[in-house]
Amino acid sequence: MTRVALIGSGRMGAFHGETIARRVPGARLVAVADPQPGAADALAARLGAAATTDPAAVLADPAVDAVVVAAPARFHADLVVAAAQSGTHVFCEKPMAMEVADAVRATEAARAAGVVLQVGFNRRFAADWRAARTLIDGGLGAPRTIRSLTRDPGGFDPARVAPDTIFRETLIHDVDTLRFLNPGATAVEVHAIADALVRPDWRDRGLLDTAVMTVRFDNGATGIAEACFEAAHGYDVRAEWFGPGAMLSMGSTRADGLVVHGAAGISAATVRYDQDLFRDAYTAELTAFVEAAAHGVPEPGAPSGEDATEALAIALAAARSVREGRPVRTAGVPA
Amino acid sequence: MTRVALIGSGRMGAFHGETIARRVPGARLVAVADPQPGAADALAARLGAAATTDPAAVLADPAVDAVVVAAPARFHADLVVAAAQSGTHVFCEKPMAMEVADAVRATEAARAAGVVLQVGFNRRFAADWRAARTLIDGGLGAPRTIRSLTRDPGGFDPARVAPDTIFRETLIHDVDTLRFLNPGATAVEVHAIADALVRPDWRDRGLLDTAVMTVRFDNGATGIAEACFEAAHGYDVRAEWFGPGAMLSMGSTRADGLVVHGAAGISAATVRYDQDLFRDAYTAELTAFVEAAAHGVPEPGAPSGEDATEALAIALAAARSVREGRPVRTAGVPA
Amino acid sequence: MTRVALIGSGRMGAFHGETIARRVPGARLVAVADPQPGAADALAARLGAAATTDPAAVLADPAVDAVVVAAPARFHADLVVAAAQSGTHVFCEKPMAMEVADAVRATEAARAAGVVLQVGFNRRFAADWRAARTLIDGGLGAPRTIRSLTRDPGGFDPARVAPDTIFRETLIHDVDTLRFLNPGATAVEVHAIADALVRPDWRDRGLLDTAVMTVRFDNGATGIAEACFEAAHGYDVRAEWFGPGAMLSMGSTRADGLVVHGAAGISAATVRYDQDLFRDAYTAELTAFVEAAAHGVPEPGAPSGEDATEALAIALAAARSVREGRPVRTAGVPA
Amino acid sequence: MTRVALIGSGRMGAFHGETIARRVPGARLVAVADPQPGAADALAARLGAAATTDPAAVLADPAVDAVVVAAPARFHADLVVAAAQSGTHVFCEKPMAMEVADAVRATEAARAAGVVLQVGFNRRFAADWRAARTLIDGGLGAPRTIRSLTRDPGGFDPARVAPDTIFRETLIHDVDTLRFLNPGATAVEVHAIADALVRPDWRDRGLLDTAVMTVRFDNGATGIAEACFEAAHGYDVRAEWFGPGAMLSMGSTRADGLVVHGAAGISAATVRYDQDLFRDAYTAELTAFVEAAAHGVPEPGAPSGEDATEALAIALAAARSVREGRPVRTAGVPA
Repeated sequence: MTRVALIGSGRMGAFHGETIARRVPGARLVAVADPQPGAADALAARLGAAATTDPAAVLADPAVDAVVVAAPARFHADLVVAAAQSGTHVFCEKPMAMEVADAVRATEAARAAGVVLQVGFNRRFAADWRAARTLIDGGLGAPRTIRSLTRDPGGFDPARVAPDTIFRETLIHDVDTLRFLNPGATAVEVHAIADALVRPDWRDRGLLDTAVMTVRFDNGATGIAEACFEAAHGYDVRAEWFGPGAMLSMGSTRADGLVVHGAAGISAATVRYDQDLFRDAYTAELTAFVEAAAHGVPEPGAPSGEDATEALAIALAAARSVREGRPVRTAGVPA
Repeated sequence: MTRVALIGSGRMGAFHGETIARRVPGARLVAVADPQPGAADALAARLGAAATTDPAAVLADPAVDAVVVAAPARFHADLVVAAAQSGTHVFCEKPMAMEVADAVRATEAARAAGVVLQVGFNRRFAADWRAARTLIDGGLGAPRTIRSLTRDPGGFDPARVAPDTIFRETLIHDVDTLRFLNPGATAVEVHAIADALVRPDWRDRGLLDTAVMTVRFDNGATGIAEACFEAAHGYDVRAEWFGPGAMLSMGSTRADGLVVHGAAGISAATVRYDQDLFRDAYTAELTAFVEAAAHGVPEPGAPSGEDATEALAIALAAARSVREGRPVRTAGVPA
Repeated sequence: MTRVALIGSGRMGAFHGETIARRVPGARLVAVADPQPGAADALAARLGAAATTDPAAVLADPAVDAVVVAAPARFHADLVVAAAQSGTHVFCEKPMAMEVADAVRATEAARAAGVVLQVGFNRRFAADWRAARTLIDGGLGAPRTIRSLTRDPGGFDPARVAPDTIFRETLIHDVDTLRFLNPGATAVEVHAIADALVRPDWRDRGLLDTAVMTVRFDNGATGIAEACFEAAHGYDVRAEWFGPGAMLSMGSTRADGLVVHGAAGISAATVRYDQDLFRDAYTAELTAFVEAAAHGVPEPGAPSGEDATEALAIALAAARSVREGRPVRTAGVPA
Repeated sequence: MTRVALIGSGRMGAFHGETIARRVPGARLVAVADPQPGAADALAARLGAAATTDPAAVLADPAVDAVVVAAPARFHADLVVAAAQSGTHVFCEKPMAMEVADAVRATEAARAAGVVLQVGFNRRFAADWRAARTLIDGGLGAPRTIRSLTRDPGGFDPARVAPDTIFRETLIHDVDTLRFLNPGATAVEVHAIADALVRPDWRDRGLLDTAVMTVRFDNGATGIAEACFEAAHGYDVRAEWFGPGAMLSMGSTRADGLVVHGAAGISAATVRYDQDLFRDAYTAELTAFVEAAAHGVPEPGAPSGEDATEALAIALAAARSVREGRPVRTAGVPA
C-alpha cells in the first residue's frame, strides 16, 4: 500500500484526492495539506485523511511515500524540489513550473534524489490517445500533420487570468499531445496567434483567451494546437494525427450514447467538464504514478520532468511569437 | 435512346417522370398519361413530353418502348398486364397488385410477352443496401436476424388509408428488404402486431398505423419489420443484418454532414422525405430499368414480378396474422 | 460504512466483489462465501475480506449488513429467502429465480422481513438508459415500438447451457429494458422464435442460441427483444424507443473514441465484454444498493423483486411460445 | 434553354461537360473545345455536342450563351478575358489565374463586358458548407477559429507538379472556405509551413506536397488550412467553424451509410474521389451558373472574380511565407 499525501485542496486537488482515496488500487490517502487555514479539513475528513496547513511537514513525514502536488501553478517547481529533497515520489499537476529554468531545476532535483517525478499530462492516459500512440509505435511512420485542441467550458474570471495562461496552462496540454503523438521528434520552430475574443473588453489589459499555434518539428511534421477559454458546447478536447498510412482521430464531444431524434432533428448531450471527460484518464495517471512510486521506477511513456520542461519551453515560445509577431525557434529535446 | 411513357402524375409519378427526363442516361420521357383531365398537362409540359388522358393509347403507341406505372395501387396489376400485352417493358411502383392472384397474373403476362418487368423496391438500389448485399453474396453466411424499418414523416389522412395499407404499401418494402438480405431463403411463417397508435381515434374504424412483424425463414433466420405512418424526426429507413461473421447496418437518419455543437449540445438535421433520402436510389432503379428495357433483359438482382408477388404474399400473411391473432404460415418462393 | 458480504466467487461474483471493495463509496467487503472449498480464498485475500465456504454463516453474522448474491442462478431464490430471514439486505443477480413461483416466494420473503431487495438489471443504471428514462418520465408519451437487444461475444459451451437459458438469463435483461422504457404498462402477450443458429449441431439436443421475441403491452406498444449467444464483433447491447414525439437510441458498440482512417477505410474498436461496457453501470447499481441498504429504503426505480418476477414471467412465456408455436398471453403487473 | 460550351476536355472538363449535359436543368451542352486535335471528339459525341479544336470559334459563336472553362490553369485568365470580350457568360475552374494581376484583369474584363463570371469554388455549394453559412448569416457572431482541410487521394506525379501548386490549386479551396465562413472579414496576415513529406525524394527539386497555413483576419478570427497531396484513406475535405455560440463541423469521410461490425471491430468505406464527394455540389454550382447566365445576374454568394482574386492573393502570400520563413501581410478585400 503506497501512502500518498495531497498538497492543494482546490478543485483539482479535491478531485485528485478522491481519485487516490477511492479509485487507485494500492494507494491510501494519508494527508491533505493546504496552507490556507481550514481549507483541507472538510476534504480530508471526507476522505479519511489527516489535514494540515504545512506542506513541509507532510513531506518530512516518513509515513508519506508519495505526494500529489495540486497547489497553484506558481508553487509547483519549489514543491517538486522540496519533495525530491525529502525523498518523496512526486506527481505534479501541469505546468510543472512557470519558467523553463525552474522546470529544469525541478527535474534535476528529482533526478538527483532518485524519486519518481510524473507530470499531469493526463491525455497520455486517456483511452483514445493511448491507443493512438500504440498504433504509432506499431509503425505508422512519421506524421505529416497533428492537431490538438482544448476548448474550456467558459465562466472564467478575466481578472484572475495571469498573462500567458492560455499557453502555460491550457495549450501546454496540446503541446504535450503533439509531442506524445510524434515520438522522437524535436520541435524546431513555433508560430502563434492569440487574441481576446471571448472577452474583447479585456484585450487592452492583455487578456489572451483564444489562441492558435503551429509547431514545426525536425521530422517535417507540423503540429497545430488550438485553445479557447470558452465553448458554448462544453469541454472539447480532440486530436487528429495524419501520416502516410493512416489518419487517427481521438476524442469525442459526446457525453453519453443517447441520441434523441425529434421534430427538430437529432440531438445528443456534450461533455461539460474535464473531470467527466477524463475521469478514467485521471485515475489511470495516478494509478501509474502509484505503481511507479511503489517500485521506484517511472512507467515508460509517463510524462517526465523533461517532458514538462520541453512542453513549457514550446508554450512559452508561442507566447513570445505572439508578442513579437514572428516565428520563434526552439532548441528542445526529442519527444 | 429508350422512349419512356409515364402513367400516373401524382407525387411519385411526377418524381419518376422528372427522374426519367433529367437523370437517367439513355432515356427520353415521351408521354405522361393520367385519366384525370388536365392532370398530366403541367408535368408533361415542364418535362417536354406529350400529355394524354388515355393510358391505353400510350401503350399502343409504337414510339413508346417502356412505361413507368405510378398510378394508384389498385390499377397496377391491370396496367402491367396491359403493358405486357402491348409489348411494352414495364416498371411498376410497389405494390404491383392488391392481391396475390393479381400479382401472379401480372407476372405471367409479362413473362408470356417477353417484356421486362421491374418493380419499385427502390432500396435494392440504395448504396448501403446494395453494398450490404454485395458483402453477403461474398460469403457472410446465412443471417441469424435481419431488421428493416420504415417510419414515414406523418401528415396522413386516416380517411384515405385503405385497410391493410401499412402491410401492402409500407411494410412490403421491408419484407422485400428482408428477402433481399437473405438470398435463397424462403419465408415459412409470419407473425404480426398492429394498432392505431398515431391516430387512436381511428382504431374503431380499423386503422392500423403502427406495425411490427416477424418472419421466420427456412434457413433459421428471423426477420423483423417495423413500420409507422408518423415519426417526429422525419423519414426513417434503416436495416440491420446480423450473421455469423458480421453485423451490417444500413441507412442513416442524417440529412447532411453538418453537425452543430451549441449550448444545448449536439444537433444535426434529419431526412424528411423519401425523395430526398432515396433520390439516388430512385435514379439507379430507373436507370437499371431503362438499361434492361434497351436490351430486353432484366438486370440481375432487380426486383422481379416474382419478388413482388412473394413480398405481397408475406405482407398479406402479416395482415391476416393481426386479424387472427396467431402466426400464419406461408408457402412462398425463395428470395 | 455498510458491511457487505458476497456469495459466489465466479466471474460475476469476482467482479461484483471488486466493485464493492474498490468503487462503491460507503461500502466495505467483509466476506466472500463460496461452498466450493478454496474457491473464495484468492478473491477474498485480494480484496481484504474473509473467506468462507458457508453462505449461511455469512448471513447469520450480525457484522454483515447486506449481501450480494452472485451464485449460480438455480440457488438465487433460496439465497434471497435466507438473506431476508436473516434480516440482511440483498442484491441478487438476475435471474432472481428459475420459476415464477420461486420469484414470488423470494419477493414476499424480503417484503415480510423488511429488507431491501434489489435485482441485477444493470442497464437501468447505465447512462444512456437512465437518461432515456428521464426523458420518458418528462413526458414523451407512450411508446409505439421499443427494441432491446443483447449479443454476447460467444465462446459458450453448449453442453453447459441449460434449457431456456437464452430467455431466462439473457433476454430477461431485454424484457426488463422493455418494461423500464414503458413505465406503467403491462405486457399482455408474448410471441417468440428461437433456434440453434450458432451451433446448429446442438439443435437436436434442444439448444436455443438465437431468439427474437415480441411483447404486446396494454398501452399498444410493441416491444421487440433480440438475443444471440455469439457476435463476431463482441458484446452488443443497444435499445431504441420510438414514440409520438421522439425516437431515442441507447447504447453503442464503440470501445473508445479512436477512429482510424486507412487504406481500407474507416475502422474502430468494439466493446468485447459486459464488464467493460457496463463497468460504470455495475458500480452505479451497487452504489444504489449500498445506499438503499444504509437507509433501509430501496432507490426509486431500482429493479425490485416484483420487477424480477414479472421479467421472468414474460421470459418464460416467450420460451413457451417457442415450444407451442403460438403467442402466449401473460397476466402481469405494470412496469 | 441556356446553350453552354465547354473549353477543356480533361478529367474535370469531362465531368463538368457531363454535368451540364445531364444534370443541370435548363442547360444544353452545345460544344466542346480542346486545342489538342481529337481530344474533344469522344466526349462531345457521347454528350451530343459539337467538337472543335478552336476555343475562339466557340466564344465567337452567337449560339453559345455561356462557357465553362476547364482548361489547364495557366490559360484560365486569358480565356475569361476572351469570353468576356465576346459577351459570353463564363464559369472558370479554380484558380482563375496564376498571378493576382491576371486575376484582376480577368475580373475587370468580365465587369466591363457585363457578363456573369463565376469561379469553381464548389464547396460553397456543398450541402454542409451551405447550411453552415446559412446558420452563420442567421447570427452566430464572428468566428474565433476556422479550420478547412483538403487531402487528396494521392497518385500524383511529382514531375508534373508546378511550383506552389499546393497553394495555388489546392489550398486556394480552403482559403475560399475560410473566407466563405467569415463573411465580411478581411485577411490581414498569413503564415505557412510546407514540405515534401509524401515524396521527400523530391524535396531538393522544390516539391511541396504537405502544407499548413494560418490566416489572421481583421475581426480576430484565425483560419487554419491544411492540405496534403496524398491520404491513404482517400479524399478528405472537412471544415470546422468555432464561434461564440456554436461549433459547426462540415464534411464527412464516409462514402456511404453502411457500417460493418466484424471480428476486427467496426469498418466503413471512405470517399475516394472529389467527383464522388462533391457530385451534388458540382451540379449545384453549374446550376447556379446557368441560372445566373439565363438572367444575366450572378447568384448572391456565388464565388465571384473578386473572391477568386482574393483567394489567390492569400494563397500566394502563404507560398511567400514559406519561402521567407515569416508571416506575410496581406491587404485584401472583405469576404
